[in-house]
Amino acid sequence: MEEKQLLMIPGPTPCPASVLLAHATPMINHRGPKFVSVLTEVTANLKTVFRTQNDVFILTSSGTGAMETSIVNTLSPGDKVLALSIGNFGNRYAKIARTFGADVEKMDFPLGTAVDVAAVRAKLEADTGKAIKAVLVQFNETSTGVVNPIPAIAAAVHAHGALILVDAVSGLGAIDLDTDGLGLDVVCAGSQKAFMCPPGLAFVSFSARALAAAETAKMPRFYFDAREAKKYLASGQTPWTPAIPQFFGMQQGLRLMLQEGMDKFQARHLRLRNATRAAVKALGLELLVPDDGIASPVITAIRAPEAIGPDAIRKLALNKYGVVFAVGQDALKPTVFRIGHLGYVDDTDVLAALGVLGSVLTELGFPCDPAAGVVAAQQSISQALARV
Amino acid sequence: MEEKQLLMIPGPTPCPASVLLAHATPMINHRGPKFVSVLTEVTANLKTVFRTQNDVFILTSSGTGAMETSIVNTLSPGDKVLALSIGNFGNRYAKIARTFGADVEKMDFPLGTAVDVAAVRAKLEADTGKAIKAVLVQFNETSTGVVNPIPAIAAAVHAHGALILVDAVSGLGAIDLDTDGLGLDVVCAGSQKAFMCPPGLAFVSFSARALAAAETAKMPRFYFDAREAKKYLASGQTPWTPAIPQFFGMQQGLRLMLQEGMDKFQARHLRLRNATRAAVKALGLELLVPDDGIASPVITAIRAPEAIGPDAIRKLALNKYGVVFAVGQDALKPTVFRIGHLGYVDDTDVLAALGVLGSVLTELGFPCDPAAGVVAAQQSISQALARV
Repeated sequence: MEEKQLLMIPGPTPCPASVLLAHATPMINHRGPKFVSVLTEVTANLKTVFRTQNDVFILTSSGTGAMETSIVNTLSPGDKVLALSIGNFGNRYAKIARTFGADVEKMDFPLGTAVDVAAVRAKLEADTGKAIKAVLVQFNETSTGVVNPIPAIAAAVHAHGALILVDAVSGLGAIDLDTDGLGLDVVCAGSQKAFMCPPGLAFVSFSARALAAAETAKMPRFYFDAREAKKYLASGQTPWTPAIPQFFGMQQGLRLMLQEGMDKFQARHLRLRNATRAAVKALGLELLVPDDGIASPVITAIRAPEAIGPDAIRKLALNKYGVVFAVGQDALKPTVFRIGHLGYVDDTDVLAALGVLGSVLTELGFPCDPAAGVVAAQQSISQALARV
Repeated sequence: MEEKQLLMIPGPTPCPASVLLAHATPMINHRGPKFVSVLTEVTANLKTVFRTQNDVFILTSSGTGAMETSIVNTLSPGDKVLALSIGNFGNRYAKIARTFGADVEKMDFPLGTAVDVAAVRAKLEADTGKAIKAVLVQFNETSTGVVNPIPAIAAAVHAHGALILVDAVSGLGAIDLDTDGLGLDVVCAGSQKAFMCPPGLAFVSFSARALAAAETAKMPRFYFDAREAKKYLASGQTPWTPAIPQFFGMQQGLRLMLQEGMDKFQARHLRLRNATRAAVKALGLELLVPDDGIASPVITAIRAPEAIGPDAIRKLALNKYGVVFAVGQDALKPTVFRIGHLGYVDDTDVLAALGVLGSVLTELGFPCDPAAGVVAAQQSISQALARV
């Protein structure tokens, strides 16, 4: 069964059959009335998930394209930017800003921890001349599996007055984020994450402040120009030919998401996280993020036993059992692997994956009870479901 | 039958069912071995269609993203660029270069004509200081339905020494273009055109000279950085999460294309063009491009009768018959409509569309024999097929 795989990675997530089949819908004219109705429904439902009344623009790109969009539309070369990094995607956000000429001050926090809000607040308070124009931050840092305290960070940024740009690509929808309540200026998301859809589309919300910044921002942009996106959105279109199959897919994905209900949807991700973490500990492995309070509901990073290494675990799981775990990224590549529990993943998928993890560890000579992970996950899940 | 439509537009084209269904393939890890094999096959087959040994990079974007990629990777702000425009996409290409800081000199040629090679040659010969770093040109200008004489333009550019960047988005594959034989430095294409696939992917070939330019070019780029694309291509990946469904679709689309054979594929487009032009004339309408020698094999622009206008024709064809014609663009919007005969379109589709055109014209009070178009197209097609 080479074809059958259990995708336990932080995107693309597995997709419901109805979402996949929506991608096979015959083509339509992206300048005609049918496309307008699809785009209108998708945009309205995205706003519900984003918890915003702001404009949400749909881009044909990966999440990285959304990150670039957030920067080039709000900043000018030479603008001072404070980039908060807790991992690979924080580094990427800073790099994009630097590439387009921003004067980036980067605050790095240890891998596996969240942003230290007090340090950020102090940095912003010290900027009495208000040189800092924007703060860049991840909602959920995919490389380490940490959720940043966006409410506290947003409060500190608002006290200063800078824009707050949030890369929420891997977290939005699966973890509650109140875009309007927290006054987030730009929020980035992607189709292949919580939306249970294939990759191909990215989403960006722009506050009134961010749209005003787009009018004066001097960084060059064409494909990712938010002013063009806003202009075309007014007539239910995108400036450039969009990835039409993913629009049909998102139409269905969002319907399923809202049908499940955001509360249940997010409770499911929390339940899967808790089960995974309980299993990892029961198997005698070390979590990259010991602190339950900041551990990601969508992705769990695990230190591989030193004698075995993460690659052997991933390869045996893939080749023998068809279970796909994710690699560690950058500095964590030699020591860490990750289990995604994001999107169209349920309790049975997690139980299966954790069973395979126990078997693989045992087969690679790691001293553990191969069933210990499943047992712990069963208990964790049963208890969580009993509370519902 | 509101669902059933006959798409006669220059992209997205109709798609074979097998291509659409390939988009419903379950998701895979874009960092795993299965994706490598898909990307490798698609890239190899793209090179065959591009007629190149150059690197071909696959972008998750529209064709406009490919155009931006060609510019920001080969030029620096302040570089002098010669932009040859025969319509809307020529204007767009110039605008992208200007947006990123190029010093653009634009040569505009009348709508419905091709680039005047003698004028271009004179302009390049006058540039004895070799200030011009690149020449921008469309292969097939979609807004007017004109094919530019790329061989002659390329010869003039090579005599000068500038780079030649070619937007071949709507033409590549349907019309022969010898990327390597003509020494084209960057060539842009898109999935929703000749490849008979939905939109979502764009393609760019980079010559050795273009790749060398990318090392020194100073225009800022991140998402569209060709250096990153080249680095990841070496391991069968893309830098950012790709539109995976379209990769499965292109795998199938390219197989069908090469199975039909490029000669037959391109002869079909020429046959459909000739049939359409014969029908338009027989119906008493005026072609925007009177010159058969430069008329596009993929799209025919038609002047609507003044008393009726293009919108009435398009709307009646769509609402009464489910046939989708394309709008005129920019300056041509009030007077022109277009019939696409691109991609997964065959003789029967063209006959049907031209039949509807005759009926619609008659119903709108235009004095013509409603069957005249179909009769002329039948004759044209029969004669062409008899010659095979």
